[in-house]
Amino acid sequence: MSGLQLRLGELAERLGLVLEGDADLVVSGVAGIEDAASGDLIYVRTEVYAAKIGDSPARAVVAPEGVDVGGRAALRSSDPGRDFYRAARIFVPEPDFAPGVHPAAHVATDARIDPSAHVAAGCFVGAGAEVGARSVLHPGVTLSDGVRVGSDCVLHARVVVAAAARLGDRVVLQPGVVIGGAGFGYTGQEGGGLAKVTDVGSVWIGDDVEIGANSTVDRGTLRDTRIGSGTKIDNLVQIGHNCVLGENCVVVAQAGIAGSTVLEDGAVVMAQAGVTGHLRIGAGAVVGPRAGVHKDIPAGASMLGAPQRDAADFQREVAALRRLPELLKRVRKLERAREEKS
Amino acid sequence: MSGLQLRLGELAERLGLVLEGDADLVVSGVAGIEDAASGDLIYVRTEVYAAKIGDSPARAVVAPEGVDVGGRAALRSSDPGRDFYRAARIFVPEPDFAPGVHPAAHVATDARIDPSAHVAAGCFVGAGAEVGARSVLHPGVTLSDGVRVGSDCVLHARVVVAAAARLGDRVVLQPGVVIGGAGFGYTGQEGGGLAKVTDVGSVWIGDDVEIGANSTVDRGTLRDTRIGSGTKIDNLVQIGHNCVLGENCVVVAQAGIAGSTVLEDGAVVMAQAGVTGHLRIGAGAVVGPRAGVHKDIPAGASMLGAPQRDAADFQREVAALRRLPELLKRVRKLERAREEKS
Amino acid sequence: MSGLQLRLGELAERLGLVLEGDADLVVSGVAGIEDAASGDLIYVRTEVYAAKIGDSPARAVVAPEGVDVGGRAALRSSDPGRDFYRAARIFVPEPDFAPGVHPAAHVATDARIDPSAHVAAGCFVGAGAEVGARSVLHPGVTLSDGVRVGSDCVLHARVVVAAAARLGDRVVLQPGVVIGGAGFGYTGQEGGGLAKVTDVGSVWIGDDVEIGANSTVDRGTLRDTRIGSGTKIDNLVQIGHNCVLGENCVVVAQAGIAGSTVLEDGAVVMAQAGVTGHLRIGAGAVVGPRAGVHKDIPAGASMLGAPQRDAADFQREVAALRRLPELLKRVRKLERAREEKS
Repeated sequence: MSGLQLRLGELAERLGLVLEGDADLVVSGVAGIEDAASGDLIYVRTEVYAAKIGDSPARAVVAPEGVDVGGRAALRSSDPGRDFYRAARIFVPEPDFAPGVHPAAHVATDARIDPSAHVAAGCFVGAGAEVGARSVLHPGVTLSDGVRVGSDCVLHARVVVAAAARLGDRVVLQPGVVIGGAGFGYTGQEGGGLAKVTDVGSVWIGDDVEIGANSTVDRGTLRDTRIGSGTKIDNLVQIGHNCVLGENCVVVAQAGIAGSTVLEDGAVVMAQAGVTGHLRIGAGAVVGPRAGVHKDIPAGASMLGAPQRDAADFQREVAALRRLPELLKRVRKLERAREEKS
Repeated sequence: MSGLQLRLGELAERLGLVLEGDADLVVSGVAGIEDAASGDLIYVRTEVYAAKIGDSPARAVVAPEGVDVGGRAALRSSDPGRDFYRAARIFVPEPDFAPGVHPAAHVATDARIDPSAHVAAGCFVGAGAEVGARSVLHPGVTLSDGVRVGSDCVLHARVVVAAAARLGDRVVLQPGVVIGGAGFGYTGQEGGGLAKVTDVGSVWIGDDVEIGANSTVDRGTLRDTRIGSGTKIDNLVQIGHNCVLGENCVVVAQAGIAGSTVLEDGAVVMAQAGVTGHLRIGAGAVVGPRAGVHKDIPAGASMLGAPQRDAADFQREVAALRRLPELLKRVRKLERAREEKS
Repeated sequence: MSGLQLRLGELAERLGLVLEGDADLVVSGVAGIEDAASGDLIYVRTEVYAAKIGDSPARAVVAPEGVDVGGRAALRSSDPGRDFYRAARIFVPEPDFAPGVHPAAHVATDARIDPSAHVAAGCFVGAGAEVGARSVLHPGVTLSDGVRVGSDCVLHARVVVAAAARLGDRVVLQPGVVIGGAGFGYTGQEGGGLAKVTDVGSVWIGDDVEIGANSTVDRGTLRDTRIGSGTKIDNLVQIGHNCVLGENCVVVAQAGIAGSTVLEDGAVVMAQAGVTGHLRIGAGAVVGPRAGVHKDIPAGASMLGAPQRDAADFQREVAALRRLPELLKRVRKLERAREEKS
């Protein structure tokens, strides 16, 4: 925590929430229910969670209207999780980075770095690249020639952005992310073996996109690979060349989307799932954890299993499979009965 | 595109293709059918694709002999995909890197860098390491002591080559690749817990090998891990210690090959598949997407599923599984009929 | 090998093993049976392995008591694998790194680097960070503000440790590891879309932990993500926010553990397996390769399949599935027989 101490009344005001209880109570941090000390703000989503507060020393709770918090002060919220983490941001502010380019950064003379941006030591910014207002490049970030980074972006340590990719505003790339590596596209060549196709496309990333540590987004072949605004991608995810992800999609850790597949707005791909290339995953569709998708999915549908199944069918088949060893015996019994008769 | 403008006659000549149509037509780039402008070269693989050209403004097409391209100029090719991308390489040439070692690179005094090689800022080249003619080390590449890189290699930003690994010629490593990390090998130790075995082996990589972003190839324990010439590996792939991959193998994104497994020439491991250690995957065998392989695979065989099944058996069993819930009811019905009779 | 030549008698003494045979025999390295030259030490675990020695030129063998090694000198061991690799460590010693901070490293003025530690060129050490005695930071390691690294640690090239994470002693991080990236936690926000929750927690790593290349361990949300002492993690593994791994756990390549899951001491998660969030995996439990775990696992249990099954049930069901296509035919036959009768 930052050492900040806040009167609960002021905190309520800053969050725009109704306070029930002592406005002069001082809060100095946030915590989970199990770990909270008396100065910590906690939160509960529902009555069920509220029952867990028990004799926690915490004296202030973000809670839905009407939920009993055992005589503690309450900040009433229609979305306690969201408002608790807004409070957390007040106690643990985003770190501040001084504007300017570190002398041990390597920036091409014709790159355009906004004066309010921060470029740390060991960064490399190629010819013609651009970095927008207030964006932060942590140590060792590499932007190749022609890359454009919008404003208020955070590129963590060791991020690589290649292929003249363009990033919108408020994009956050966790350490080790690689944007714009070559697509895995080959043609045959005379004399045998494979020849890499020439990648002409790049990567286009919208606003408010976040990508997790060591994930990779390949450049497009002829068109750009595209990640729509608001889309969130977890760690160790692979996004193949020419993929088009819509807005507000979610792709969870270690999932992979093969080349040229389209995810419409709000589609969700859960952890370790795989989606074959050249498919269309409809708006709001959900690809379950570890699912293997090889066909288009209509908007709003839920798929599980590999090969993919409608979630309800999958559950039914899995349940039936549990009974299969016994079924084999039952059929054998029927056969014996028939053999005996004949 | 590079801004290059080429007469179609000259392009045909440079590609060694027969031109049908106006040799004086000027082409300035390549594009997919949907995006092409009038100055772009497009391509079609078959009659079916040709039907999609429709009223595209593109006036020049790479197409197989005899395929109708709607009155446009045609470069006739027995492999239009390959020749289109050869044309793309002309319009989008490989970037040029000036020979020499950047003053902000850290190169051991006894390392041998060919004068035609390019070593960018922030690279680290250890004692006794070698970099061959025309090879390019992008910013932040680390070669540990004794690493040898052949000629015409491209090591993209943040690549790490450790353990005195040796790379052949024309090897391309995408950003974040790690060659020569420790193998995951442990023995018990007195007092409990695990002790890392001492890795004596390294990694040997042949010619024309390409490895995708953030993939990892572990060093061998007693022998070298080996990646045969012409083999192509996609992003986020794991190759375990002591593996021996033959020539012209293909390993697609997020697949993993556990320690000491052998892939014979031309074997293919599709995306997110896993191959257990100490196996032999025969020449030209195909491990399907998401397959889980725990037994040897004969040359040329195709496997799907986890645990692995011959592809045809897998399809049959998956189809049968779809009918299992209904089968349970049918058997129940037979049993009832028998109960009623007795 | 290091060029070291050792009398077998001295080697036996240094390893604390009983020697049977010529103490004056000179050994200069270690090798696998297939590759050994006459100066190499080899090893066999059992009689079965001993049969493979055949006419190997190797003249010295680490072998269990009583196992015949064909007239060669034998170092008798209760754990030949362990003692062979202890010998290997003598011939291939850990590389030595000179104490001190390279002038091209960027170390905050208030960071505390033990004088015996090695910090290579291109490292970044943030404000208030600490590096303990004899620890080695390879080129390009980034420690953000407040990170603490214990003694005798090895952080390989391009490792990133963020979020003020704390590492115990003898921790080894392979190249490209990211510790302390943001967790994948979001709440809704007014106006739609997702807002990243504020991460207050960090990462705590015990002693003797080893983590493989390009693996990622996310920081906790309100509590720390924890990796217990002695735990070994392979390459490209994802450990989600708030996870608590006990002591001596093993997580094999490309496995993923989702947020807030607990692995009790000695739990094993095999390659490419996935464990859902908020679960408890009991002490010594084994999650098989590619398993998909969505429920708690009791201590000592073994699970396979996705969705998870007790290993024995899984084997039974897989075997039954193999017979399902034929079963469909058998049931059809029974039905026909019944139809004919009625």
